[in-house]
Amino acid sequence: MAEREGLMKISVIGGDMRQISMASAFRGEGHTVDTFALGGEDGEAKSLGAAIEGADCVILPLPCETTSGTLNAPLSEEKIYFDDLFKMVKKGALVCAGKVGAAVKSSAEAHGVRLTDYAAREEFAVNNAILTAEGAIEAILRELPVSLCSLSCLVIGFGRIGKIMAHRLRALSARVTVSARREEHFAWARAFGYDVAETGSLENLLGTYDLIVNTVPSLVLDKNRLSLLKKDCLCIDLASNPGGIDFSAAAELGVKAIWELGLPGRCAPVSAGIVIKDTVCNVLKEWGIT
Amino acid sequence: MAEREGLMKISVIGGDMRQISMASAFRGEGHTVDTFALGGEDGEAKSLGAAIEGADCVILPLPCETTSGTLNAPLSEEKIYFDDLFKMVKKGALVCAGKVGAAVKSSAEAHGVRLTDYAAREEFAVNNAILTAEGAIEAILRELPVSLCSLSCLVIGFGRIGKIMAHRLRALSARVTVSARREEHFAWARAFGYDVAETGSLENLLGTYDLIVNTVPSLVLDKNRLSLLKKDCLCIDLASNPGGIDFSAAAELGVKAIWELGLPGRCAPVSAGIVIKDTVCNVLKEWGIT
Amino acid sequence: MAEREGLMKISVIGGDMRQISMASAFRGEGHTVDTFALGGEDGEAKSLGAAIEGADCVILPLPCETTSGTLNAPLSEEKIYFDDLFKMVKKGALVCAGKVGAAVKSSAEAHGVRLTDYAAREEFAVNNAILTAEGAIEAILRELPVSLCSLSCLVIGFGRIGKIMAHRLRALSARVTVSARREEHFAWARAFGYDVAETGSLENLLGTYDLIVNTVPSLVLDKNRLSLLKKDCLCIDLASNPGGIDFSAAAELGVKAIWELGLPGRCAPVSAGIVIKDTVCNVLKEWGIT
Amino acid sequence: MAEREGLMKISVIGGDMRQISMASAFRGEGHTVDTFALGGEDGEAKSLGAAIEGADCVILPLPCETTSGTLNAPLSEEKIYFDDLFKMVKKGALVCAGKVGAAVKSSAEAHGVRLTDYAAREEFAVNNAILTAEGAIEAILRELPVSLCSLSCLVIGFGRIGKIMAHRLRALSARVTVSARREEHFAWARAFGYDVAETGSLENLLGTYDLIVNTVPSLVLDKNRLSLLKKDCLCIDLASNPGGIDFSAAAELGVKAIWELGLPGRCAPVSAGIVIKDTVCNVLKEWGIT
Repeated sequence: MAEREGLMKISVIGGDMRQISMASAFRGEGHTVDTFALGGEDGEAKSLGAAIEGADCVILPLPCETTSGTLNAPLSEEKIYFDDLFKMVKKGALVCAGKVGAAVKSSAEAHGVRLTDYAAREEFAVNNAILTAEGAIEAILRELPVSLCSLSCLVIGFGRIGKIMAHRLRALSARVTVSARREEHFAWARAFGYDVAETGSLENLLGTYDLIVNTVPSLVLDKNRLSLLKKDCLCIDLASNPGGIDFSAAAELGVKAIWELGLPGRCAPVSAGIVIKDTVCNVLKEWGIT
Repeated sequence: MAEREGLMKISVIGGDMRQISMASAFRGEGHTVDTFALGGEDGEAKSLGAAIEGADCVILPLPCETTSGTLNAPLSEEKIYFDDLFKMVKKGALVCAGKVGAAVKSSAEAHGVRLTDYAAREEFAVNNAILTAEGAIEAILRELPVSLCSLSCLVIGFGRIGKIMAHRLRALSARVTVSARREEHFAWARAFGYDVAETGSLENLLGTYDLIVNTVPSLVLDKNRLSLLKKDCLCIDLASNPGGIDFSAAAELGVKAIWELGLPGRCAPVSAGIVIKDTVCNVLKEWGIT
Repeated sequence: MAEREGLMKISVIGGDMRQISMASAFRGEGHTVDTFALGGEDGEAKSLGAAIEGADCVILPLPCETTSGTLNAPLSEEKIYFDDLFKMVKKGALVCAGKVGAAVKSSAEAHGVRLTDYAAREEFAVNNAILTAEGAIEAILRELPVSLCSLSCLVIGFGRIGKIMAHRLRALSARVTVSARREEHFAWARAFGYDVAETGSLENLLGTYDLIVNTVPSLVLDKNRLSLLKKDCLCIDLASNPGGIDFSAAAELGVKAIWELGLPGRCAPVSAGIVIKDTVCNVLKEWGIT
Repeated sequence: MAEREGLMKISVIGGDMRQISMASAFRGEGHTVDTFALGGEDGEAKSLGAAIEGADCVILPLPCETTSGTLNAPLSEEKIYFDDLFKMVKKGALVCAGKVGAAVKSSAEAHGVRLTDYAAREEFAVNNAILTAEGAIEAILRELPVSLCSLSCLVIGFGRIGKIMAHRLRALSARVTVSARREEHFAWARAFGYDVAETGSLENLLGTYDLIVNTVPSLVLDKNRLSLLKKDCLCIDLASNPGGIDFSAAAELGVKAIWELGLPGRCAPVSAGIVIKDTVCNVLKEWGIT
């Protein structure tokens, strides 16, 4: 336990620039931070055990798991198994991880480890949506050979990302239509001055847009709908798997469509790390740890 | 049943300008509309029975009840009892009313009448919040002898009204701080560029605002907090009963505080009527009536 | 001359709430302020002479003159002649007045008084335009029985007031078209996301608006054009004399048209006084007086 | 002269993607367009003479000249001299070019050619500023590892680019301070809700910004001022020559500073071409040619 009131020993294991940013921010506040499998980051410990030993809080990346079930540590050659990791965790310590699957969860339970998924928290999702929308604006500005000013844009879906995306596009003087399915979403969209449309019956409108941003994770832009688009319309998909665009149909039809995943970590890694840190701090506060 | 497909007979009983606006909008779409107890409005029927007879949909005001339990009909001298009204309703017709209390509900059940509360629907609440925020801007502009431009404003609460209120104030170039209690509300507030504060610990900040808009229906601005305000700070309470300001303490302390209730009906009655109409139409669509 | 560095004796003669606000703001900064003909305002001197004697700067109202050529002093019964006033001014002092006409100007010259017109300065005009736009929003919200949200609005003219007016209306989620005559104004209007139209050929569009705000001081809305408006369209004229609407034709046609003049002084007198004060201070700085 | 009323023969000689976009837009309207020295663009003529012969309007690029005094034609190997070009121009035709220098001007005069500089027109400058600001937002999003949301930004200068830049940054939820030198610019900046500062006395504030955008073409950020910046502050210079940042001092001090020139042509070439086209059309209209 750290000496000054409220100071902790924190372990940051695996991950990318976001975790490096997070580790640095925790250190800036006076906490003792050990890292491991972060690509030779300054505070990196000699071994996983050394990094975790005595830690009050162990923070794992987002997502925490690779497809092969080991810890996600793209900056390192190490293969770290969750069972090995969890058994080193100090009794009473908190492990925070992003997108926790069933296997990781039961491994934690088996070792009596308190595990929480920061990516499942609402404030994390909203803060991440801000970064996603900003990364999307960057991608759009990069891909479009025309100005956003007065451009006709459609934002499909009015959840977290759709809400912020529509706001940013309108702020940049685009003309924004929001398509949704629920009456309350129409009301919210009108409150902020957007035009509205029914996602279920976009056919007559699709030929009027120069930019379409999808945020709905189900097939909204199928081959038929893609065939109705204006020749130079850019489609950008921000929805997580399975996305909302039929990309092979798009390629066939010559529609420019891009799928932008993981924008926060790619476009604003420092802020993305701070978002994880702030969420972890909220968890610690709620659990009475800090 | 009206002749043209989808056309109905609609009864609008009691209420104010909003109901007159609604009746007129329904007529504009070709429906047959009979009204009663609406102050001699053009389509007014001779009797309650004549107005309700054969109606597919009967629309009652918002709120539907007076404190003495009769139908809310401020433009009329008539005393209309819900039992009398419900027994005239055609079998299978839908009755739509705003803010339905327990007594009205059980009276409807006793008469086998299908009753729905449009004011309880989310899209109604959002659309009404738009009108409330606009009415509040009008009141603020009227009451303040200074410009909103660069003014330091605090919006307490970040629910529907708080969200739209903060947006409108910032749009008018004010400096906006949002106070809330939940981390997700802080995240949303930051997404739109507002400063944020904890509602629970506003004491140190209260002396910095020129305008405070409360949207939280519990005592947020008590005597102690009111005593911390800047001399000319205007407080406006938009929260429904019991409100969030201790008005007698405000009077004692010389703090200018106003409680603005029922803004949609007072400031934008025509739009407020359309909001009710649109909500009723959504209900009818869901029930397969139109 | 006041004792502390930069402190002055200032006289505020005539005017309304704006001058009272200005006097109070100057006092708050430590200056010695004498007033006269301000309706018994706290610091009011016994006589015009006593108020002006020894003053480094004499501030007259906006407009400074009544139609009968005396000082504009609506809060007072006094008839003050400029010749009498100017001859009391200390040698080397600066007199600041708003909307100085030829007679006042030559009277000042005859008495060897340095006179400057604060209302002719650009920063005054811009700051006053902010207050005018805000007052116009208040009037619009008061007059319209419908919501501004999604309302189709036309702003005629894209000078100072037009620019701010369009910004405020769009900020409140209205749909804004700006009409102008110059290509550069079209470019600026598009930069901020407004639709644009030619003021010279509005005929086909006039029937589509619910609100028209004129800022051009020449007859833009004549009888013919007024006859093309939507039934409930509200027209508000912010242009100074001769205005831009044929009001008698409007009355004849049943078009609701209002002419809002002097909004800053009426709607935000305290801020309007500060705007005058800040402008006077800029003048004093440039003249090396403070 | 083309057959259909108002249709012309237009020559587009030299330039880049912008000119290709312009040529294509003119063709889309039915005009006959010949191009030359545009990198084998579809409508490219066999020779300069063939391209210019009979043209009602000859459009040259922006800037029209290379440093060696020939026509600016980066997509072509041709060396085209203005004297050769001007002598082929049909009598009465109009030549439109961007950033016309003295030599080109006198060459045109010597050949009796009517020459106009579209880049000198106000609507061109404003429309180009929109594209510059958008390109700057793209560069900023690309360079910053942190989110713009809540970021402290300084925009130096409040001319065309400064005005739009500040608007876009605030729209993206950044905190924006505008620095300027003129009182009227302060007033305009406040009208839109920005904080303001004196460009002449920024020293105390410079350490508070995370992003600084300069738009003033004179040395505003010298070595001393650069040394006052926050460690990770990004500086972006949008001013034309000589710019406003001491880049070698920045390199020495480890300050990240980038100079973004020619953003419209690089980031939004299609729109940048349309802006030239629209400006040329305004010129033609004013000259009574179309």
